[in-house]
Amino acid sequence: MEIATTVAEARGFIRSWRSHDLAIGLVPTMGYLHEGHASLIQKAREECDRVVVSVFVNPTQFAPNEDLAKYPRDFAKDVKLCESLGVGLIFHPSPEEMYPPGYATYVEDPKLSENLCGRSRPTHFRGVLTVVLKLFLILEPTRAYFGLKDAQQFFILKRMVTDLNLDIALVPGPTVRELNGLALSSRNSYLSEEEKKAALSLNQALTLAKSLLRSGERQTATLIAAMKGAVAAEPLVKLDYAEIVETTGLSLIPEVTGEALVALAAYVGKTRLIDNFLWEGEDKV
Amino acid sequence: MEIATTVAEARGFIRSWRSHDLAIGLVPTMGYLHEGHASLIQKAREECDRVVVSVFVNPTQFAPNEDLAKYPRDFAKDVKLCESLGVGLIFHPSPEEMYPPGYATYVEDPKLSENLCGRSRPTHFRGVLTVVLKLFLILEPTRAYFGLKDAQQFFILKRMVTDLNLDIALVPGPTVRELNGLALSSRNSYLSEEEKKAALSLNQALTLAKSLLRSGERQTATLIAAMKGAVAAEPLVKLDYAEIVETTGLSLIPEVTGEALVALAAYVGKTRLIDNFLWEGEDKV
Repeated sequence: MEIATTVAEARGFIRSWRSHDLAIGLVPTMGYLHEGHASLIQKAREECDRVVVSVFVNPTQFAPNEDLAKYPRDFAKDVKLCESLGVGLIFHPSPEEMYPPGYATYVEDPKLSENLCGRSRPTHFRGVLTVVLKLFLILEPTRAYFGLKDAQQFFILKRMVTDLNLDIALVPGPTVRELNGLALSSRNSYLSEEEKKAALSLNQALTLAKSLLRSGERQTATLIAAMKGAVAAEPLVKLDYAEIVETTGLSLIPEVTGEALVALAAYVGKTRLIDNFLWEGEDKV
Repeated sequence: MEIATTVAEARGFIRSWRSHDLAIGLVPTMGYLHEGHASLIQKAREECDRVVVSVFVNPTQFAPNEDLAKYPRDFAKDVKLCESLGVGLIFHPSPEEMYPPGYATYVEDPKLSENLCGRSRPTHFRGVLTVVLKLFLILEPTRAYFGLKDAQQFFILKRMVTDLNLDIALVPGPTVRELNGLALSSRNSYLSEEEKKAALSLNQALTLAKSLLRSGERQTATLIAAMKGAVAAEPLVKLDYAEIVETTGLSLIPEVTGEALVALAAYVGKTRLIDNFLWEGEDKV
């Protein structure tokens, strides 16, 4: 397994693989890898000739008041996991390598960033789009893998790939959960035992909404009120948002008539967590 | 010479050329080609194996109150000129091909768009960056050619190429002028004979600033006042801006100490024209 810390080094490996017509699978991550990342890497390993994992805690997707400095990092452990999963290259650049002095270009999608996490994190998706586009242009993947735990991110990136005529297949991976239902997240490492228990209310709220949908409820106001109630029952959890949007423009909808994204974010103590499910219609879920 | 109107068609030609390791030169234009475009095409012809000219009046770089609808077009004439200059491919997409329904992704550079034309045209460079990035990703040029008449555009695009890790060489071409000094522009076709004479005051103002710089003047306030005076002498011309910026971040400077861009924009009747010169220091100009 190779490790590149500069764009030039990474390009060396990529160009040589591409010149042999090898299919490259990219799994972009912020490191501190968990089973969710591992499942994406395994999928990439099955579908591509070479797998590249980027490990980069991207400063432009954090607001000044957010957890950039304390975001968990363990590169040595990430390297071991990648090695064991048959990764071909880890791209692990410094912030200065990705954003040298004078850096000034950003990609944005104001429409799809309007609701859900975009409302409470107004510069977040600009940072995500910018860094992912850079990773795409540096690492020239055939396919790129993203977890659906970050569902809004996946839809916005899909829009970018279409809009900018990028010849890359985006592959979604399902949210990986603990047995108790908690969605895996590097940020779970911030939680105390008590907070971990409290955090289960996020998935419980979503499960409640899903069962209401299955029983025929279609009014989003009713579904959202039920989710809010489920989260409010847990004193350690403070809801950021619970929203339901259609999956083309991520606009809020009054009624669920087709595919919809049911998503929420909440602070568990000081830690902000997100979770969601995709409602694909009665027959498919 | 080939003409492609869809992304898929254009990609067919490009991919075949690239598979033969041919160097591709791209000249992005809004059509209604003049000698300025021709000089870029000739340069591309000398330096590359295949030349691609894009002809696309890009709606996203026009504000609602601007001249998108009446912007001059003569595709048949453009085709003849390109044919005569040895162009290999014209890419001439429809607005819907470039911006299909639901389009939502934009590239921006708020810093370098702050001054000069960015101030009076706040969404202009967002449109330019977005369309040029799309053209780069569709047409995969080795080198891309841009005229220095649009100097701010050139600096912003150069920033984008660096920032987004695009492996493309940007090649500037000098402003082409009529014998009387008027910078060539497709928008000159809007001017009456009287307005054409009045428009000479733009270049005259710049020539005055250049001679003051040559004689040792370095205070931008003095240089700008001189330019404003020269333009004010012409009643048909209304200055939009006269500014002097350094060429890294395009920030306004109080004094010219190194390379500087001296630029102005003015309305001649209802037509907005721009002109500029690059001051590279006493010895080089």
